[in-house]
Amino acid sequence: MTAASDSPVLAIDIGGTKIAAAEVREGQLTGRRQTATPRTGKGDDLVAAIVALVPKGQVDAVAVATTGIVRDGALTALNPQTLPIEDGYPLAMAIESALGVPPLLVNDAQAAAWAEFSVGAGRGFRNFAFVTVSTGIGCGVVIDGRLQRGTTGLAGHVGHTTSAPDGVLCGCGRRGCLETIASGTALARRGSDRLGRTVSAPELFAAAAHGDGVAAEVIASAVDALVDAFANLTSVVDVDCVAVSGGVGLAGGFIEALQARSLQLPRIFQRPIVAARAGADAGLLGAALLVRREIVYDGNFHQQ
Amino acid sequence: MTAASDSPVLAIDIGGTKIAAAEVREGQLTGRRQTATPRTGKGDDLVAAIVALVPKGQVDAVAVATTGIVRDGALTALNPQTLPIEDGYPLAMAIESALGVPPLLVNDAQAAAWAEFSVGAGRGFRNFAFVTVSTGIGCGVVIDGRLQRGTTGLAGHVGHTTSAPDGVLCGCGRRGCLETIASGTALARRGSDRLGRTVSAPELFAAAAHGDGVAAEVIASAVDALVDAFANLTSVVDVDCVAVSGGVGLAGGFIEALQARSLQLPRIFQRPIVAARAGADAGLLGAALLVRREIVYDGNFHQQ
Repeated sequence: MTAASDSPVLAIDIGGTKIAAAEVREGQLTGRRQTATPRTGKGDDLVAAIVALVPKGQVDAVAVATTGIVRDGALTALNPQTLPIEDGYPLAMAIESALGVPPLLVNDAQAAAWAEFSVGAGRGFRNFAFVTVSTGIGCGVVIDGRLQRGTTGLAGHVGHTTSAPDGVLCGCGRRGCLETIASGTALARRGSDRLGRTVSAPELFAAAAHGDGVAAEVIASAVDALVDAFANLTSVVDVDCVAVSGGVGLAGGFIEALQARSLQLPRIFQRPIVAARAGADAGLLGAALLVRREIVYDGNFHQQ
Repeated sequence: MTAASDSPVLAIDIGGTKIAAAEVREGQLTGRRQTATPRTGKGDDLVAAIVALVPKGQVDAVAVATTGIVRDGALTALNPQTLPIEDGYPLAMAIESALGVPPLLVNDAQAAAWAEFSVGAGRGFRNFAFVTVSTGIGCGVVIDGRLQRGTTGLAGHVGHTTSAPDGVLCGCGRRGCLETIASGTALARRGSDRLGRTVSAPELFAAAAHGDGVAAEVIASAVDALVDAFANLTSVVDVDCVAVSGGVGLAGGFIEALQARSLQLPRIFQRPIVAARAGADAGLLGAALLVRREIVYDGNFHQQ
């Protein structure tokens, strides 16, 4: 990435539902647009959808945040239910062919974690975790000011740590992952099972707000599992703070419930739990910031 | 630590049962001796026991590995059953007063992880975990060649990540920690419960080796919990390899059982599981190596 730092970065965020794009200059997004994600299982269709979002003319720098596992420029689904794609699809190469610029490619939650660490709720911490509780559960971890990607791209996947050893089979192949208990998808499934009628996650929250004890129990069990996972994360990497985002994470009262539950942990495992502040486009922003702030690259990104 | 690198380091390892000491020069231990750990709950008694192990004459450099949480030179028990001590006992200051040299102070499993990374089974990896399965379960994590200690000293405590949300109360205050299922102490307790007679962990292994199906089940559940914890660790920090040590970890067939169980994980979570190679005195060795190899200190130790 050698583009002058005053030219915009074309940032792209590939999710399971939509692909978003924007120009990012000095931390500001302009021209944001989006399209539905082609769920055909073919990476080439993703690239075609991306190209349709790119304006005519020269692109100086491209940053791509994507759901899934990013390794050596290739994309693999960890949970194919989120985004079906060929194993090891050479996304970086395909985008470079299409746009003429080698992109920076990074997992979307890792990118958002970098945005939160750089300009959001993680500023000033040394060890920091960002957790988005949404359709799935994404996470990025910054240790010693370095965004952890890991040798295989897996770093930060707290959504696929296990909460219940004999739990529900997860799309990743493990049983009882946090994502099978506390994600929006899991809340809708578990709420529907318990209530005997189909509810979405927002409907479950509405029912709990209107005094439905069963709905409240389902949400409370998600809160328990998340706080337990945060404490496990703290046991292993000793984060200074956990910032929470996502449709579930930012639902009314949810962070307060996490905070209250956290106070029941032994004190040594308690950490501040705060709302993320970089917004819904943190993935776009973080990917662009990684292009501009990437001073040293040795497998993980860090500021100097 | 400014002692010339050819003078020996006095290395001390404080465990729940014994305190060991040795001189370490160029990675070689000499003059190893040990004494019973005073389990009085008083840090001053620990220091008196340490002083009794120190030869007369000048000490150039002191490295202390200890069970418990080390933060800013102070020691706190995470699990007081392992080593009772006053919260935040100023161990570094007390040792400096007694020996005239400010010691390097580090958690024992973190020290052993550094020995394994430097001269043992972790050589050549970038991201590495060392797990000792013994009376308790200790762990140290190296990320990007840096030994993780964490802001509060908690980093690497995989033994206090949870395996069973509604499990047994752990000495740390959480429920269902890995340590309550897979440590030697837990194996003895759980084996005794299941067999209806008091057995030690070695006796449980002997019973399983002689065809006792119940004993084998108890051990298998510990293997399951450990491999699950290794996969969780991999999900979060993407380690390249896990080295296992300790009386349980190195018991006949145990690592092979961990390896076999690991092959049932989805491939993306599988990592090599190997026997540690730095020996039973890895804590002494690692602490001494930290004194000598500590080029840059910024909260975590790393080689340059």
